[in-house]
Amino acid sequence: MGRLTGGDPSLLRRINSAVVLHALRGAGSLTFTDLTRVTGLSRPTVEGVVEGLMETGLVVEAPPEEGETRRQGRPARRFRFRAEAGHLLGVEIGPHRIAALLSGLDGRVIGAGSRTVSETASADERLERVRAMVADVLRRAGVPRSSLRAVGVGTPGIVEADGTVRLGTALPDWTGLALGERLRRSFRCPVLVENDANAAAVAEHWMGAAVDSDDIVFVLAGLSPGAGSLIGGRLHRGFGGAAGEIGALHLLGREVTPEKLLSTTDEPVLPLDEQAVATVFRRARQGDRAAQEAVERFIQRLVHDVAALVLALDPELVVIGGWAAGIDGVLEPLRGELARYCLRPPQVALSLLGEAAVATGALRLALDHVEEQLFAVEGTVTARR
Amino acid sequence: MGRLTGGDPSLLRRINSAVVLHALRGAGSLTFTDLTRVTGLSRPTVEGVVEGLMETGLVVEAPPEEGETRRQGRPARRFRFRAEAGHLLGVEIGPHRIAALLSGLDGRVIGAGSRTVSETASADERLERVRAMVADVLRRAGVPRSSLRAVGVGTPGIVEADGTVRLGTALPDWTGLALGERLRRSFRCPVLVENDANAAAVAEHWMGAAVDSDDIVFVLAGLSPGAGSLIGGRLHRGFGGAAGEIGALHLLGREVTPEKLLSTTDEPVLPLDEQAVATVFRRARQGDRAAQEAVERFIQRLVHDVAALVLALDPELVVIGGWAAGIDGVLEPLRGELARYCLRPPQVALSLLGEAAVATGALRLALDHVEEQLFAVEGTVTARR
Repeated sequence: MGRLTGGDPSLLRRINSAVVLHALRGAGSLTFTDLTRVTGLSRPTVEGVVEGLMETGLVVEAPPEEGETRRQGRPARRFRFRAEAGHLLGVEIGPHRIAALLSGLDGRVIGAGSRTVSETASADERLERVRAMVADVLRRAGVPRSSLRAVGVGTPGIVEADGTVRLGTALPDWTGLALGERLRRSFRCPVLVENDANAAAVAEHWMGAAVDSDDIVFVLAGLSPGAGSLIGGRLHRGFGGAAGEIGALHLLGREVTPEKLLSTTDEPVLPLDEQAVATVFRRARQGDRAAQEAVERFIQRLVHDVAALVLALDPELVVIGGWAAGIDGVLEPLRGELARYCLRPPQVALSLLGEAAVATGALRLALDHVEEQLFAVEGTVTARR
Repeated sequence: MGRLTGGDPSLLRRINSAVVLHALRGAGSLTFTDLTRVTGLSRPTVEGVVEGLMETGLVVEAPPEEGETRRQGRPARRFRFRAEAGHLLGVEIGPHRIAALLSGLDGRVIGAGSRTVSETASADERLERVRAMVADVLRRAGVPRSSLRAVGVGTPGIVEADGTVRLGTALPDWTGLALGERLRRSFRCPVLVENDANAAAVAEHWMGAAVDSDDIVFVLAGLSPGAGSLIGGRLHRGFGGAAGEIGALHLLGREVTPEKLLSTTDEPVLPLDEQAVATVFRRARQGDRAAQEAVERFIQRLVHDVAALVLALDPELVVIGGWAAGIDGVLEPLRGELARYCLRPPQVALSLLGEAAVATGALRLALDHVEEQLFAVEGTVTARR
């Protein structure tokens, strides 16, 4: 049970400091008078707290606002949050592509980079490419590596809390890789590793198709779909970090593999890479009957997998991302079938962030981590609904 | 953001009162000295709070413990929580059966009753039978109806927050029924209506097969399975209260209905009632090949539906209840298939509460409601991890 105790001065100082920092971060710049009004704290308290925050480098004096200097007398001192006091990275490590986003402590993106990478690249090669890409992004933005406060990473597979990939069949050497530890050695700051669909769900909620909903399922639709879900605005990882890994479901129904689903002959499509898939979809658009039937089978399986997620979780909104989101005619069958079979059909929308979703979500996870430290009081004592 | 303020005396009084009540409820009886030690409150505060709690009837003076009277001097006054100061009901309203459990404010069951009811009974008939059953349970326990502080109800269907059944096809007249409102008129106390599988999940977590896990899926396995899930120990209802209603999934795969699944001829089993089902299972046990194949198809579909829940939610534990839990050979295929296809297979256990699960969960929901009132401070300010 929570107890209220007014007697801990260091806790009160931390709370007041977080309150002032919160107010400054939400505004351009504020005076002492503004801060006493916004926070309800006394003038001496505000002054003491601001002084402490300036010592940590998180707050800096700001120039007078336009017009202030022309008024009579000396303008009141102004202060602002120093977003440049530290930096964050959001990194995607995928089978074909790696990407990075760089931001200040306010989460505003100030640098970006991406590279293609071979599906067959070893873990060492892949991580070396990530390091080179990040070095390039930092250099171009003029940000020293030592300024990084946290790095978020989104990657396929089941990821444990310490950043170890428990199971990751999409990338060579990925299963068992201590990815978090490897990257922490490079970056010398906290590294948070998350499943790619989970990261994308966080991203769409932050600044994509799901900003208005706290109960969402994001489907990373590809040959074998994965999903990430938010419940009450919080990521649902599952007991072992495997929630949403719906791709295996069709195996149970004794239904066919993607290699057979997308075949236009009696033989499976081998290898079923992106080029082979694109060929089937192109032939379908050109009117090839067998290819159209293959695409139809593929969409039906996606509908079935999404329906399973919706029936289990009952989200308000389903966001479809991943490359299959680009297929003509995915959204309408999904909406129609979900409306027919789900007792309470959700809204269905396409991803707004597209291929930036995973890195954006990874950046948000890094930001969450830093905010938890800056506003630590939120993690200590909080008002519940 | 939560703010700590030490300046609200009525809030502090409520907190102190909840702390003392909590301590008393967890113990047989305690003295003022015990209470100051356990709560950390001052002796005058404890005395004032206990006096207030005795006025509300929630605390009463207790007799001296054995041995105390033989010692020198007058024994210290003792106090205990008055579990009999109010009562709670947990009610199941099912298609074939209604049941009720009665407890004091400590949740200990002191009365029970059940009745069969016709599958075709109207909502009015069904509710009349519930009222008669409850009156009988109260009478036999010697508890006046006015002593009821909360009633929990578990029933099939999607249930809205106010207790209206949004969709309930298992019982006649159930869709659209303002069940909560109807029952509140009878009981004149808060009535909390919940989906039956959700209630059963809560029950297994409280005192059944899931006491050691906070991340569970309870499957109410029948012709069309439903499920309830706890995430981090809390019921996951879904955005619209429909989470876990997995029964519709097979329709999407263009798979057959239970009527066809369980048919041993080319014709569907009509009507597919419990007697017809029992016949198929009996014939399978007797070696009838067509019946065995029908049962196998039925189990495969159950496995598929459970796998969909497991892949979406990644629980630590799956508890199988409902009548299909009694079928020979349900558990082993489930464990085997989940281990084959789930990236992180959960534990699988049979319900320990059996047909008492739904009413037990409904009782727990009533108890939760009353505890929230008694220990209201927990809902106001609380320490997070």
